[in-house]
Amino acid sequence: MSNLKRVYMANTDLAPIREALQTQGRELRDLLGGKGSNLFIMTSEGLPVPEAFTVTTDACNEYQALGRKFPEGLEDEIMAALAELESQTGKQFGDPQNPLLVSVRSGAKFSMPGMMDTVLNLGLNDEVAEGMIKLTQNERFVWDAYRRFIMMFGDVVMGVEREEFENCLDQVKEEEGVTLDVDVSAAGLKKVVELEKTVYEKHLGKAFPQDPREQLMEGVRAVFDSWGNDRAVAYREMNKIPHNLGTAVNVQLMVFGNMGNDSGTGVAFTRDPSTGENVIYGEFLLNAQGEDVVAGTRTPEPIADLEEQMPEIYRQFVGICDQLEELYKNMQDVEFTIERGKLYMLQCRNGKRTAAAAIRIAVEMEKEGLVTEAEAVMLVEPVQLDQVLHPQFDPEQKPEPLAKGVAASPGAAAGKVVFTAAHAVAEAEAGQRVILVRRETSPDDIRGMNASQGILTSMGGKTSHAAVVGRQMGKPCVVGCAAVELSNGQMSVNGTVIKEGEYISIDGTTGEVMLGDVPTTDSDIIRVVQGRLAPEEAPIYGLFAQLMTWADETRALGVRTNADTPDDSALALALGAEGIGLTRTEHMFFGEKRLLTFQKMILSERVEEREAAAAELLPFQQEDFYGILKAMDGKPVIIRLLDPPLHEFLPKDPAGVKAASEVTGKSEQEIMDVSASLHELNPMLGHRGCRLGVTFPEIYKMQVRAIFQAACQLKQEGLNPIPEVMIPLVGIIGELEITGTDAKAVAQEVLSEQGVELEYMLGTMIELPRAALIAGDIAKLAEFFSFGTNDLTQTVYGFSRDDVEGKFIPAYVSKQIVPVSPFESLDEQGVGRLIALACKEGREARPSLELGICGEHGGDPDSVDFCHRVGLDYVSCSPLRVPIARLAAAQAQVKNPR
Amino acid sequence: MSNLKRVYMANTDLAPIREALQTQGRELRDLLGGKGSNLFIMTSEGLPVPEAFTVTTDACNEYQALGRKFPEGLEDEIMAALAELESQTGKQFGDPQNPLLVSVRSGAKFSMPGMMDTVLNLGLNDEVAEGMIKLTQNERFVWDAYRRFIMMFGDVVMGVEREEFENCLDQVKEEEGVTLDVDVSAAGLKKVVELEKTVYEKHLGKAFPQDPREQLMEGVRAVFDSWGNDRAVAYREMNKIPHNLGTAVNVQLMVFGNMGNDSGTGVAFTRDPSTGENVIYGEFLLNAQGEDVVAGTRTPEPIADLEEQMPEIYRQFVGICDQLEELYKNMQDVEFTIERGKLYMLQCRNGKRTAAAAIRIAVEMEKEGLVTEAEAVMLVEPVQLDQVLHPQFDPEQKPEPLAKGVAASPGAAAGKVVFTAAHAVAEAEAGQRVILVRRETSPDDIRGMNASQGILTSMGGKTSHAAVVGRQMGKPCVVGCAAVELSNGQMSVNGTVIKEGEYISIDGTTGEVMLGDVPTTDSDIIRVVQGRLAPEEAPIYGLFAQLMTWADETRALGVRTNADTPDDSALALALGAEGIGLTRTEHMFFGEKRLLTFQKMILSERVEEREAAAAELLPFQQEDFYGILKAMDGKPVIIRLLDPPLHEFLPKDPAGVKAASEVTGKSEQEIMDVSASLHELNPMLGHRGCRLGVTFPEIYKMQVRAIFQAACQLKQEGLNPIPEVMIPLVGIIGELEITGTDAKAVAQEVLSEQGVELEYMLGTMIELPRAALIAGDIAKLAEFFSFGTNDLTQTVYGFSRDDVEGKFIPAYVSKQIVPVSPFESLDEQGVGRLIALACKEGREARPSLELGICGEHGGDPDSVDFCHRVGLDYVSCSPLRVPIARLAAAQAQVKNPR
Repeated sequence: MSNLKRVYMANTDLAPIREALQTQGRELRDLLGGKGSNLFIMTSEGLPVPEAFTVTTDACNEYQALGRKFPEGLEDEIMAALAELESQTGKQFGDPQNPLLVSVRSGAKFSMPGMMDTVLNLGLNDEVAEGMIKLTQNERFVWDAYRRFIMMFGDVVMGVEREEFENCLDQVKEEEGVTLDVDVSAAGLKKVVELEKTVYEKHLGKAFPQDPREQLMEGVRAVFDSWGNDRAVAYREMNKIPHNLGTAVNVQLMVFGNMGNDSGTGVAFTRDPSTGENVIYGEFLLNAQGEDVVAGTRTPEPIADLEEQMPEIYRQFVGICDQLEELYKNMQDVEFTIERGKLYMLQCRNGKRTAAAAIRIAVEMEKEGLVTEAEAVMLVEPVQLDQVLHPQFDPEQKPEPLAKGVAASPGAAAGKVVFTAAHAVAEAEAGQRVILVRRETSPDDIRGMNASQGILTSMGGKTSHAAVVGRQMGKPCVVGCAAVELSNGQMSVNGTVIKEGEYISIDGTTGEVMLGDVPTTDSDIIRVVQGRLAPEEAPIYGLFAQLMTWADETRALGVRTNADTPDDSALALALGAEGIGLTRTEHMFFGEKRLLTFQKMILSERVEEREAAAAELLPFQQEDFYGILKAMDGKPVIIRLLDPPLHEFLPKDPAGVKAASEVTGKSEQEIMDVSASLHELNPMLGHRGCRLGVTFPEIYKMQVRAIFQAACQLKQEGLNPIPEVMIPLVGIIGELEITGTDAKAVAQEVLSEQGVELEYMLGTMIELPRAALIAGDIAKLAEFFSFGTNDLTQTVYGFSRDDVEGKFIPAYVSKQIVPVSPFESLDEQGVGRLIALACKEGREARPSLELGICGEHGGDPDSVDFCHRVGLDYVSCSPLRVPIARLAAAQAQVKNPR
Repeated sequence: MSNLKRVYMANTDLAPIREALQTQGRELRDLLGGKGSNLFIMTSEGLPVPEAFTVTTDACNEYQALGRKFPEGLEDEIMAALAELESQTGKQFGDPQNPLLVSVRSGAKFSMPGMMDTVLNLGLNDEVAEGMIKLTQNERFVWDAYRRFIMMFGDVVMGVEREEFENCLDQVKEEEGVTLDVDVSAAGLKKVVELEKTVYEKHLGKAFPQDPREQLMEGVRAVFDSWGNDRAVAYREMNKIPHNLGTAVNVQLMVFGNMGNDSGTGVAFTRDPSTGENVIYGEFLLNAQGEDVVAGTRTPEPIADLEEQMPEIYRQFVGICDQLEELYKNMQDVEFTIERGKLYMLQCRNGKRTAAAAIRIAVEMEKEGLVTEAEAVMLVEPVQLDQVLHPQFDPEQKPEPLAKGVAASPGAAAGKVVFTAAHAVAEAEAGQRVILVRRETSPDDIRGMNASQGILTSMGGKTSHAAVVGRQMGKPCVVGCAAVELSNGQMSVNGTVIKEGEYISIDGTTGEVMLGDVPTTDSDIIRVVQGRLAPEEAPIYGLFAQLMTWADETRALGVRTNADTPDDSALALALGAEGIGLTRTEHMFFGEKRLLTFQKMILSERVEEREAAAAELLPFQQEDFYGILKAMDGKPVIIRLLDPPLHEFLPKDPAGVKAASEVTGKSEQEIMDVSASLHELNPMLGHRGCRLGVTFPEIYKMQVRAIFQAACQLKQEGLNPIPEVMIPLVGIIGELEITGTDAKAVAQEVLSEQGVELEYMLGTMIELPRAALIAGDIAKLAEFFSFGTNDLTQTVYGFSRDDVEGKFIPAYVSKQIVPVSPFESLDEQGVGRLIALACKEGREARPSLELGICGEHGGDPDSVDFCHRVGLDYVSCSPLRVPIARLAAAQAQVKNPR
């Protein structure tokens, strides 16, 4: 960090900073935070930004490392920057004649809405207040600013309950007999200031600080400290943000939107964040400070109204929005203030948006020539696609809504009503679907929101906390539904009383609130690809298809699906799957008739009996494979031979034992004895996978015969089946020698019998550390590898997913021992290292080796990125995740072209 | 194999062959087999060896690879060698005037006694027989040779039951009214030949072949085929001999020990294979062929008698024995024949011997100046030491013997009597100790012998099959116990009837057979090192100590022990352990009072309760550690913090639940609920090791406190404790950060409290693949690594030892998927690769990193050899295995000097 400073002025030359950062592999936002770097960039572009300086994230990290102490010299650097700010603005800290007031705001690398704290109007004290009254001739404005400042400082910086200060205002409002803040008199606000100072002194044992420099340093300290508060920690955990990034502190000249009706403040998106439509979307309030808009306490006006009220300002604002979009090549979320007829930009950042909006914005920005196809592909978060692929309410079964609120985050959600975040968490942990219903949400509710299917609030608008966070989480969300009244632990909606635990359903796309557990139906995109809806009836489909086309043109990594049925195969195909990466054959044995026959096989003592039972199963398996290979005609289909331990198929209850006894002719006692003998202490590490193929070759031989008989049948019908036979759980070369030789012999036998020529492959799962370590040898016999990263993660970590994931992994995540469960996102350092090794040594032994992944990681964008970098040929994931994988693969290629 | 021939004459120049082999990393015995290479070497040394040629193992492997077909040109090469043999001997195949007769014998790289088949007198036919009668004037000898040849050829080469031919002899003996073979007349033997030829034709549908060349090629084929027979395969499996080595075929001029009383044959060891005493030890028979000695059908004379009967020959023989010992620097096992007063050496090889003999021979050969110390160290198989360290019968409790036989393989064994190898295997699999009792054993009994505690036979001598195999297996063995009569599925010994399933005990050191299950006692060496026996009363001790001294001087690898008690620690120390590589702390919680307190801790819901329970356990743990650290004064002691999952400590039965309920004040239902909540599907991969340390830090803190309080106490007493604290099951760096920081803080706290300065180390187990993969990071925090190869093997293979070792691993071994269970001998390719990686990257991060192994592999010589090569500092094993590890480490250093 040698040649970087701890404090920078916003109008500084960015080039040398960027250069220094580049040598450290960092970018501007790493040092200045997202908010800070955007302030600096807007300033350098000549936009009207109030003068500012920023204390870097590095300084914050030094502070944390010193056990929450300011590093030597930091105060001096801040004071020097302050002097420069005074010089730039011509105003002085604490000067009653020409006072400098500043905002102090946190700003980390990644936007963390509502998580970090802000202090406005810092610099005010008794003397400055008096001076400002003289200067502005607006006593009401000054006392209002001062009382807000004391409250924020007391709450945010010093930790006094906000409510204590709010009571002061309420007391005066009551005394004056008014209900709205704007109706309180100047004298009243002055009284509020006095009351607040008393509250401050009562709680902190000392007077409210009159020295602006002391205020500033305390403000910086508060921002630094807020990096470690519970809500911030929880937010980072949920969003996989490292705890060691630190936050910057932005100190900016205050401008005032509450200096009369030629002033105002607002927030806006450069496009509609809900639909993506290319219209400026936002709200503003005249004669107000920013917090009034966000808090939802006064109902703001739509931004369009600004055109009528301040046409010049509006034109200027629209121009700035266009300029920002061109600059960032992305939709922007901006904050602005108008002070006595002059527009100031306070903040800009890439705007959060729904999946539908993201898709539309990406496609339209390309059409507008703003971005290239590759840039468009980067504009949609792959996981967001979930939102447009997952179910909606079935229109046929949707009841009349009880009420309608603001549609803030799209999607269908149904669940039991809960009224607190804590209940939401508890019920969700108990496996219940819940809808969190609140007057409004706050950062304290984050965990509860995450645990809910959807969120409903009675207050707030599209930019309220609930709406912003809901969209970001992809949770259906309806806000500002005034018909919802909350009291006494129940809600009533237009007369209907709903108690905690009863079901409601909310539609975040329409804003509707319905009684009961309304069934959901497939999304428009799914219905279009399945031919159940005309594309022109689903505008999202065309946009989605366009984006996916670009993604497919961009990506180097193939995308297959994991599917065990013809229906799943067909859906995945329609969603762009290029083949099947994993068909699990064991699910096919669980049909009732099949299960009993399979049990007969397990319970046979002699090879001949087992072979006879296998022969009975053959037609069933052949039919299964026929359907899947037919659905995937012309595309490769990897079929994994039996994997789970045999005891999973044996009856556990007396009725099952009885049925098995009747079919097999074995006594119930014998069946229970076999069950007991097959019991394992650690079934995950037991007699399964190819270990079964070695000890009971009849099973694999039957399965291979079924695969090739099905393939021959299709070939004879003029289709082009491409089966790839996969041996699971290979760890020793001899296992593959034996099972592979058997499989090839059976395949050849069937092809000869049927007189059919067919291309096929024989390969293995790589799902044990030893398989990766001997990949060079395995590749001599295997034509493809499929990394089974679920099992590989289990064995590399020594974690049984069943036993650790719900148990201590959450504690590990919260202690930051792991950033995220390794079963969710692939562990590059450990598991990934073995994968990279196996890829390298496998390809050395067989350059044509086909490499893929079929663990659940195949649908996780970060893991897809790794798979691209490590050189796999394809990823395979569940059908609904196929578009996500396609998009993630395209983004991986843009980031690291192959 | 380019410049090597498929057939070599025994008098060939060895230098160019050795040179060619060296480029392939092979030695002479790889190509010519053990027997062949020794024949060639003896020939080149000028010893009297009958002329011979050898078909190589490479030719055998070609034959196997071609699906049991002779490779192109091999027959021509053999015929050319035969022509050369004819030229060297001046005899002709099939020439009645001067016939060449040969023996055809198998000879693999490793000696496989009784496994492979031999044909003598090959070349005989009707015409040759008549010619030889004229030449030798010894009709009886010729017909005897011919009838033996037809029998061996029919049995060994063509697979007709040997009994069918034996019946021919029996028939004639009956006709002539004689009982001994030697009493059958010449005419009678001629009749036997005719009868055998009829048997041959009856079974094979063609006449006995009269063409000696056809006989020869069939003989070679039979030897090649015998490589794949069941007994040979079983032997190789048991002895870890690869199946792909192949066997050579030795074709050698026949010499005859049965040409009258100036002829004879014998076998001998150059020293006593049972005691190691430097006297020639063996047996001979006059007027006999070799098989008569080995078969045990005639009782041979001790070799010493030869001195009286043929003093010249004896002197020559003794000289050859000395010459061979000097040549091979090892005790030799030789076969010889005297033909009409001329001595021929037929075979020599390193002789099998007991552990006691091996030790004595090694030490005495060094004292005699025959070998260096390092060579002496190589003369004892490390695993053999088991025999002199393991228990003997307690002399106090040893009953009067029922009978006494020949003491053929030392050691004490007791078990249930079984009369067949199959029963032995079945009972052993059911967990029973058995003694196999047989008239005599044959290669068909190998598996049964291996499954038994010991072997008792009623016939045969010290060189019988049972004796040779018993010694090699380290199984106590008593042979030739004529008092044992076997009939009707029971045995009677001097009037005492013993049925299958009753207990007997045998002492292979004294030859005694006792009724009942006699308790065993510690070996002499153990009693000496524990001060319970004076060294001068145990001659083996001095020799053992000398050998161990040389081993210690030679080895580079340290040897520690795994010990959980002061007693075990003291024993290991006495056996040469240089510290403790693993103390398991969990065993200490299983004492009754401790267990209840520990349960209280587990059942506590609050940290304070757990801390209180931990505080109660502290004095117990401190006492444990005090004892161990005191026993190991001045030597490092690695103490592993708690490893197993908590549910292992909770009561499983109602009585235990009740007791826990009383102690903890929790209801029985609550206890059962906690038990259920802690239940895991795969406990091996669950909440254990440092995962407990992370979630329940109280436990580890208490343990660390106990360790350091104990250490301080010892230090204050003037001793020098060296504790090394080990964190188990680390897989993620954060786990070590948290638990390691806790441990260091507690250690520092105790040292400050006590005012003691103490050197200690903090390190980790490396027992998960991920730990090995991130070893570079771990080494930044850990001062030592201890490879936990039991768990590492489980996770690298995905094998639960409990579930696979008794179940399908035996099938894997017999199918040669694995050469041996990877839990027995370390898997170098997979597990070893991770160990090597961790060593390299660990040492790169911390050059002073201490590296060791504490899995059970630490006592396995092959694994010790790997540990030496991979650069570990020490191995750690159970106390009785310490000498084995010391010797194995010395041998590793001789083979690959560091």
